[in-house]
Amino acid sequence: MAAAAEPTEGRPAPRRADARRNVAAILNAATECLAKNPDTNMAEIAAAAGVGRMTLYGHFPTRAELVDAVMTRTVAHAQQALDAVDISGDPRQAVARLVAGSWQIVDQFRNVLAAAERELPPDRIRAAHDPVLDRVFALIERGQQSGAFRADLPLPWLTTLALTVMHAAATEVSAGRMTADQAPSIVTSTLLAALTAPADYA
Amino acid sequence: MAAAAEPTEGRPAPRRADARRNVAAILNAATECLAKNPDTNMAEIAAAAGVGRMTLYGHFPTRAELVDAVMTRTVAHAQQALDAVDISGDPRQAVARLVAGSWQIVDQFRNVLAAAERELPPDRIRAAHDPVLDRVFALIERGQQSGAFRADLPLPWLTTLALTVMHAAATEVSAGRMTADQAPSIVTSTLLAALTAPADYA
Repeated sequence: MAAAAEPTEGRPAPRRADARRNVAAILNAATECLAKNPDTNMAEIAAAAGVGRMTLYGHFPTRAELVDAVMTRTVAHAQQALDAVDISGDPRQAVARLVAGSWQIVDQFRNVLAAAERELPPDRIRAAHDPVLDRVFALIERGQQSGAFRADLPLPWLTTLALTVMHAAATEVSAGRMTADQAPSIVTSTLLAALTAPADYA
Repeated sequence: MAAAAEPTEGRPAPRRADARRNVAAILNAATECLAKNPDTNMAEIAAAAGVGRMTLYGHFPTRAELVDAVMTRTVAHAQQALDAVDISGDPRQAVARLVAGSWQIVDQFRNVLAAAERELPPDRIRAAHDPVLDRVFALIERGQQSGAFRADLPLPWLTTLALTVMHAAATEVSAGRMTADQAPSIVTSTLLAALTAPADYA
């Protein structure tokens, strides 16, 4: 029970405040459950949130809607964490720092991403990442303008590529084909190469 | 009713032959329906196949299992088509030819892929592509050995990357952010760059 939402002067809490508390409890519990196991079901999430299943389904009529809300919240969390990453200066080094910072979060919430990939179409996953993709877009655009990155491929494609390569690495780690420690340098090497036309292309 | 499976000498066709015919009709109809619309439902597929819903669910208890079977069959079809692509000679040119040949199929069955991405986890989609990935793996390995491709990134990762980039392009085309005509050259440029360490890295 959050102090800010306590009923005042002995009156019962308004229903809307209850609903807000329930939604917050559900999202916290769902994030924690899905981060441990991407296959956690609705009954387990309701139990972890301390709400009834009717309440859970009242707020999130399908598991896909709940997973979508958890993913959106995780991206918002990532957005805050990435504010601390310096993406000024040399664009190549900025990409390396952004990949390292993003990987911390992608790795921590790798199972939330796996749950999303099982429940939601790729385009929905991309759309939910738009807030963080704006940052990537601006950095690649700056690199293209300074000549550090190739300008012969469309900027939206290179932005999509950054997300795709990062998420592919998360899937490789989940599948045991790559370790979480190897991932940031592999993703950085791959992306920097893709962002730079090969020497014998020039 | 296929002539080859007709009952002989007036005896009723064995049940197993009926089942085979039904499965074939279901897979044909499902492939055609999903290639047009990735959201085609089970009732529509049963109707298109000319079988009852009980028969459909008897063979494919869930839509995910049916989509999985359609995807596996599409990859087998791709496998045959790719036999015609020459991947000998210069590894860079071989990658360009393999991308062009693969794109034909990925584009034709873009909606089957979209249906698979909505129903199945990414690792299952990757596993279903193993037959075509063996080809990609061997080509990248040859390029690494000849020095045409970088050897500082793991071969399984570069193979995954090829599939991931191809499928990301299909999603971009479906989302209207890229045209089907642009895709093969964009995918080729992206992959060849990723397969070659940037000049200032050497």
